Amino acid sequence: MIVASLPSGRDGALVVVSDDLSKARHCAEGSLAAALDAGTITPEGDATSFDAGACVAPLPRARQFLDGSAYVNHVELVRKARGAEMPSSFWTDPLMYQGCPDFLGPRAEIVGKPAWGPDFEAEVAVVTGDVPMGASEDEARAAIRFVMLLNDVSLRGLIPDELSKGFGFVQSKPPGALAPLARSPDDLPGWDGDRLDATMCVDLNGQPFGRTRAGVDMTFGFPRLIAHAARTRPLGAGTVIGSGTVSNKLDGGPGRTVAQGGAGYSCIAEQRMVETLETGAPVTPFLANGDRVRIWMEDREGRSLFGDIDQTVRTT
Amino acid sequence: MIVASLPSGRDGALVVVSDDLSKARHCAEGSLAAALDAGTITPEGDATSFDAGACVAPLPRARQFLDGSAYVNHVELVRKARGAEMPSSFWTDPLMYQGCPDFLGPRAEIVGKPAWGPDFEAEVAVVTGDVPMGASEDEARAAIRFVMLLNDVSLRGLIPDELSKGFGFVQSKPPGALAPLARSPDDLPGWDGDRLDATMCVDLNGQPFGRTRAGVDMTFGFPRLIAHAARTRPLGAGTVIGSGTVSNKLDGGPGRTVAQGGAGYSCIAEQRMVETLETGAPVTPFLANGDRVRIWMEDREGRSLFGDIDQTVRTT
Repeated sequence: MIVASLPSGRDGALVVVSDDLSKARHCAEGSLAAALDAGTITPEGDATSFDAGACVAPLPRARQFLDGSAYVNHVELVRKARGAEMPSSFWTDPLMYQGCPDFLGPRAEIVGKPAWGPDFEAEVAVVTGDVPMGASEDEARAAIRFVMLLNDVSLRGLIPDELSKGFGFVQSKPPGALAPLARSPDDLPGWDGDRLDATMCVDLNGQPFGRTRAGVDMTFGFPRLIAHAARTRPLGAGTVIGSGTVSNKLDGGPGRTVAQGGAGYSCIAEQRMVETLETGAPVTPFLANGDRVRIWMEDREGRSLFGDIDQTVRTT
Repeated sequence: MIVASLPSGRDGALVVVSDDLSKARHCAEGSLAAALDAGTITPEGDATSFDAGACVAPLPRARQFLDGSAYVNHVELVRKARGAEMPSSFWTDPLMYQGCPDFLGPRAEIVGKPAWGPDFEAEVAVVTGDVPMGASEDEARAAIRFVMLLNDVSLRGLIPDELSKGFGFVQSKPPGALAPLARSPDDLPGWDGDRLDATMCVDLNGQPFGRTRAGVDMTFGFPRLIAHAARTRPLGAGTVIGSGTVSNKLDGGPGRTVAQGGAGYSCIAEQRMVETLETGAPVTPFLANGDRVRIWMEDREGRSLFGDIDQTVRTT
């Protein structure tokens, strides 16, 4: 099943989208949030034409957002670039933060101050049904209702000071944006129950920036991330779990840009880390006013799975 | 206005409670979450008898939970007890984390493993209406809809390892519990728009543990905390902002227990810190199976403002 949300109130109006993405039907439950609460999705009425570009986020208000860092290569590069060792436990114990559960639509502007240093982070995300506290990975896997594509917007200029306070992200992680389509696990090419074998595509100002493989180098699959989040609390239906920035560790070393024939990166910060490791200093700037980032995912046949995130930066 | 929620579905059934707490009327909006979305509360039908002991949390599913550490004395004691200096910026820049937005009812058990080291943290909390990104403190003050009483349950046995990972709390902060009554600012004795002048009362296993003054030593008032949270994001109606553990800095030094004639503490951790500073090691254990914690607030006339949080610990 492919679902999306059209603009309507705070939670959007849930529609079930046809396989060819040309038509959609509204649902009796009203919103995806209400449908997840009810555990049912009931299309009703006639199908009308569907335009992914008119959608809000599939789930504009999640119950919780818990974002993992499952591509540990990314975390290791962050540490290396600042000369710190990554604890070896990071390969066995997921890193995760509690994030802002509000999500922007796929074409929402990224707004802020130039000094905030906005960056994108292209991630896979899942929406769960109810997950009991202490759930096993099998229970967690069975609770995955939809898979989505997320831009976890990050304000790099605010992160060092905020993280140094020791309590994680608040100001440095504003609401992210979701691609228009959410797909159930049984209707998602490349999904194996734990990971999504698909290419994470990022273009920055029309130039290829990233073509990473989401199914590779993901140290922790989604069931593990969900179980980690649910260790000491139940997760209510409508909880979003993020993968963290998709990052490939190619040939055992840091990656190469797409222009150099590599997979590139799913965030600017990682390109800057590789630049720092190779030349001693970062070269690529973070996002600036007017920059445009487009993020989508392609299956092995090159079909777009979730539609486009297409955001422009407006700093004032 | 005094409101509460009776058990009904996921969000509870909103009731408006009479001043003498004996009667309540249901509301057309259904739940407090829906009423905050709508910006209206419309009592309807006849008043029926009200029992605060039958209530769920006023807001079982908040939109977001952002918890400050406004009583900086508490933070300074934490640091001192582990031999670390607190950065002086902590007196001017609020410390805040993004927490679990689900809240238990006032009589819910605190469940978990003995090794998790459960503790209570008695806090004041506010519920906001919509707050625009970049809101001023005056805008933030005007957006406060209700004031509540919160037990921010903390798992001390999990905190050191989780915070050392650098991304804040997830597993170590399970859902907290809210006292049954939420009061609008215009119907709350001791509320000055920024702080609540009332006594935070904590009994542990029937013995007085804390009698701290919430209106004293709160370095950052709620409008400042809300503005901090809203710096880079809008806050949707139904966002909960916590004060952090109420803590008094009496006579310029660490506090004394209630038995010693002092104000005591609003969490066990703080008593342990004072013990560590005074004797080199903590003495008071964290919560264990069967322990019972009761938290309430009293105005200057000794009237209970929010009803009781009364939780028993069940570790297995």
